[in-house]
Parts: sequence; C-alpha cells; structure tokens
Amino acid sequence: MTNKRATIKDVAKASGVSISTVSQILNGKSQLFSEKTVEKVMQAKINLNYQPDYFAQRMIKKESKTIGVIVPDIANPFFSSLIKGIEKVLYKKNFMTILCNADFSEEKEFDAVQELERRGVDGFIIASSSITNETINQVLRLKKIPFIVLDQKKAENYSDAVLTDDHNGGILAAQHLKQLGHEKVAVVIPENAPENIQNRFIGFSSVYPVDSLLIIHAPLSKEGGESAVAQIIAGNVSAIFAANDEIALGVYRGLFDSGKKIPEDYSVIGYDNIDICNYVTPRLTTIAQPTTALGETTAKMLLKRIDNESEAWEEIILPVHLEVRDSTRKK
Amino acid sequence: MTNKRATIKDVAKASGVSISTVSQILNGKSQLFSEKTVEKVMQAKINLNYQPDYFAQRMIKKESKTIGVIVPDIANPFFSSLIKGIEKVLYKKNFMTILCNADFSEEKEFDAVQELERRGVDGFIIASSSITNETINQVLRLKKIPFIVLDQKKAENYSDAVLTDDHNGGILAAQHLKQLGHEKVAVVIPENAPENIQNRFIGFSSVYPVDSLLIIHAPLSKEGGESAVAQIIAGNVSAIFAANDEIALGVYRGLFDSGKKIPEDYSVIGYDNIDICNYVTPRLTTIAQPTTALGETTAKMLLKRIDNESEAWEEIILPVHLEVRDSTRKK
Repeated sequence: MTNKRATIKDVAKASGVSISTVSQILNGKSQLFSEKTVEKVMQAKINLNYQPDYFAQRMIKKESKTIGVIVPDIANPFFSSLIKGIEKVLYKKNFMTILCNADFSEEKEFDAVQELERRGVDGFIIASSSITNETINQVLRLKKIPFIVLDQKKAENYSDAVLTDDHNGGILAAQHLKQLGHEKVAVVIPENAPENIQNRFIGFSSVYPVDSLLIIHAPLSKEGGESAVAQIIAGNVSAIFAANDEIALGVYRGLFDSGKKIPEDYSVIGYDNIDICNYVTPRLTTIAQPTTALGETTAKMLLKRIDNESEAWEEIILPVHLEVRDSTRKK
Repeated sequence: MTNKRATIKDVAKASGVSISTVSQILNGKSQLFSEKTVEKVMQAKINLNYQPDYFAQRMIKKESKTIGVIVPDIANPFFSSLIKGIEKVLYKKNFMTILCNADFSEEKEFDAVQELERRGVDGFIIASSSITNETINQVLRLKKIPFIVLDQKKAENYSDAVLTDDHNGGILAAQHLKQLGHEKVAVVIPENAPENIQNRFIGFSSVYPVDSLLIIHAPLSKEGGESAVAQIIAGNVSAIFAANDEIALGVYRGLFDSGKKIPEDYSVIGYDNIDICNYVTPRLTTIAQPTTALGETTAKMLLKRIDNESEAWEEIILPVHLEVRDSTRKK
C-alpha cells in the first residue's frame, strides 16, 4: 500500500519522541510533558494528518466500547430478538456488540469468553444455557470483567442478573390448561434442562400433580418437538405443554402429519412468544416473554455496572404473561 | 482494583526503556535492539508475569483477527442461518465475528462500517440491501479494507462477490407455477427492491409476460405479506410468488384469515427456504438458497482476500433449486 495512513509511530518519529509520549499527549495527558514536546507532537500530528488509532487509544484508556454477547443458538428467533434489544441500547451508547454463537457447546463458550477477554471487551452478556461456574470463575471473576448471565440464576450468586419469571410462566400455562378441563398433559422438555427451563416445569407441576403428567424428553428445537409426537399419541393426554415455542412448532408438524387436529384433538401451549406464533395455523397460545425488554434491560444493567464497579449486585425479574390464541380449547 | 494485571507500561518502566521498545521486542523484533536491552525487557516480563495485551500486539501486527459482519435484519432466519455459516468458518480460523444489525438503515450501516473500521477489523462481510456505493468508496476502498458485498452485485464491479443465482431462481419459480397451469399470478415484492430481489423478478417475468402478473408492493416481512392479501383476493389470480419466505408466511396468515385454503384456492411459492418452511401447514414450496454454503463461501473468500490483497477480483455464483412441497398444486 503506497497511500498508507500515518501511524502513531510516524508521529513519534517525526517529532523525535517515543510512541508512549505521543500516545499520552494525544490522550489528554499533555501536562506530563514540556510545552516544547507537546508542540512538536501536535505539529507532527497536523503535518502527517494523523488520526488517533482506536487501538492506541485503547492502550491508554483501557476501554474498548465493546460488549461481548454469547448466545447458544442464533438461529432461534428468541435469541435474534433478544440481540436486537441488546444492540438497540448499546448502539445508542456508542458501544459495539461482538456476537458469538456458542452452539450449545461448553467448550466453544469457554473459548469465546477467553478470546473476547483477550480482545478487551468491556463486559459480557451471556445468554447461554451451558456457561459453567468454572468459566465464570476462571475468566470473568479472575479478570474482573463486568458480566450479566441472562435468564439463568447461577448457584453462586454474586453477579448481576436479569431473569424472567419462569416459575410463574409455568403456573400460568398450567392454570390455563386446567381451566380448559385438561386432566392429563404431556410436557416436552430437555432431559438436562437449563435452570430457567426447569423453573417453568416446577411452576407447571405445582398446579398439576406429577402423576397427571406425561414427561417427554426432547431438545429445545423443532426437531425435538417432532420427535416427541409418537409418545404424545401413544399416551393418554389431551394437551401438550412445550418448554419453548420451537418445540411447539415441531409438535404441530408431527401431529398434523399423524392426521391429528389442533386444538380439536390436542391443545398445545408453547413458551417464548416468538414472532411466528401469530403466523402458524392455528395461532399458537404461549407464555409471552418480554424478549426485547429483556435485551434492553440487560444491556442497560451492564452499562451501569461498567460505570459503577462497586455498586451492590442487582437482580431484576421481568414478568411474563399468558397469550391466549387458537391452539388451546376446552376439552 | 488492587490485583491489577501488569501492563506493557509496567514492563517498560521496570526495564527502563520505552513502551515502543518493549512492544517490538515482545513481537519478534529483538534484532533491532542490543542484547542487554532485550535481556532487561525479558527479565521484567518474567518478573511481572506480563501477558502480552491484545491491543499492544495489534499495534505492531496490524491484524485484529476480527471480521465485521453487517446484516439488515438479524431477526430474519435467513440472516441468522447465514451468520451461522460465516461464523463457523471464521471460528475455525480463530477469527472473531463482530456483528452489526443495520435495521435496513443506510445511516446506521454507514456508522457501523466507519465504527468497525476505526476498531481495525481485518475485513467486512456486508449482507445488506442498503449499502451504498458512497459508503463503499468513502470507507472501504479509501482505507483499503478487504470486503465482500454479499448477494448484491454492485454497479461498480471492483470487489469480490458471492451471489446466488437469483435470476434462475425466479425462472424456476415461474416454470413450476406455469407447469401447474397457473395463468395469472400475484407477485409480492418491495417497491424499491434490492438488486438481488429485482433479479428474482426479472427471471420470473421472463417466463410470465408482465400483463399476466399482478404486482403488489410490500416490505420483505411477514407483516408485508399479510398486507398484500386484500389485493390478492381482489385480483384475478390463482397463485402467488412471494419475494421471500417471510412474505409468504404473511400471505398464509392473510389468506387463512379470509377463509381461503392453500393450495386449494391459491398456490403459494416463497424464496429462501428458511427452516420454518417445513413446519408450517401446508409445507411451503420455495426456491432454496444454499444459505449455510453462502455464509461459508463468503467467509472463505474474505480470508483468502485478506491473505492476498493483490489477487484478481473473484465472483462466485451459487446455484439455487426448487423445493416442491405442499403449498402449490395444479390449477
């Protein structure tokens, strides 16, 4: 490249001082140097049309204006909506979002946290089911980087947290089905469910005694929901509680393919309230998470933490609500 | 923070040399300095347990191992799948993905490109309909940053490009409807469609004469598709070509709400082949884009370009195919 942009090194060379001196003078620490030195540096800056490099600034200011966001599955609309909410707040405050898709892998997640830490992000939002306390302790606490684990209450409770009321969500789903007269219900939920999903189940089973439930283990995906349908049909149930909407969409597919009707043969209720709920037929009844608000609240809380490292830990629990549509009806 | 990590400044101070000297010695340029200086620096590094800072390294190496990816709408599953493909390749090569959601805004896109340039990304993947030649010329070409504009052929053809065969996709959709005996077709497409979407229409209308088409303008979203339905029903058509799957899902909603049946009353064909196509009823016939391959190919091409700035520009056109499902049938 011939038309090369002037670097801090060029300014240092032209003014006959060290890079460190240039760096400090250009970052508001002129008082540390002689008037003559400051003048030489400023003149060289003008002559070379030097624009301060982000990385040089960062070495002095120790702030990168960047937030790392780690999600388990970017293709799940719940997480893309969440990211939209996060990004909206960060963008306004001139922070960039570095996104990592952890693909439900603990290893990838650990790598991502370490790598982003090396790149000096100012904080983390971790919306991921597989983050371990080891990762949190080894990387985040050790390096004292502000972070928020989103929608997962960690056992060791010394961080900020934004949660949604999963326990109440489970209760609301159960009460709705109960009021419609359903006595036996299939619950489709992952075998080793992350804590927030477990809480949905705990809420649900506080309304329905466990012996009235057919518990079917399946991953949190459309494929997962589809794979549960054979057991649903073999069981003696009239309604299905899906641990998330993606599962519910798979249950739709499987039931239709088996010639079953929703809600005539089976009532189905999901969880999340992703966009598509309103576009499938029948429209999916679900527990609505405040997805965008969740992203916005989390981003705001993290920025607050970055500004005030010594504040007391905060925990916010956002409410959920029942969104009754066409996939549930009286038994 | 008391337990503060040693910085390059601490090493410089302890060894009595400048930051610049430490930086160069720790980045493989020891030969420029006396043996004594090198030894002092290495000793200070060990004593202080100094770990090279990413940003200090970057000042020397001028490589950030970071790629900026700009998409217009992260909530569209097409783009989240695309990002998955991009990220998969980059992650393997130890590159991080910085994602920006441009929200269909030219201004936000310009800001994002500028801001990421300032942060020294090694390259850009721009999967966005609103990128202007001004942005490309003012930021990317001027600063000589490798970039790929994805799925949009720019008028000024001096960059790498990865495209999918939108023109042929339009032809395939049209031939399918024609073979099924549909004579009058509604096309739902944005008013100022980006170039790739326009190409779908050009292909489509090379099979259907324009006077057999009812062209309805609507945004590339579910809401857009829904808003087109009144005109579809008022028109004299038996089939609908939606410019993307999101529009098709909205058309489903509107037709069902008007008591119409798919495919009995209307055949519907979409474009993209997002996941949900297989989960709506009826399953959506569509033109399948190789979404993950598109992401992977683009990422590989950009990494190649970063390694070889002087190579000739490359253009890759990926094929599309017709995915016949249950939403289209004989008239």
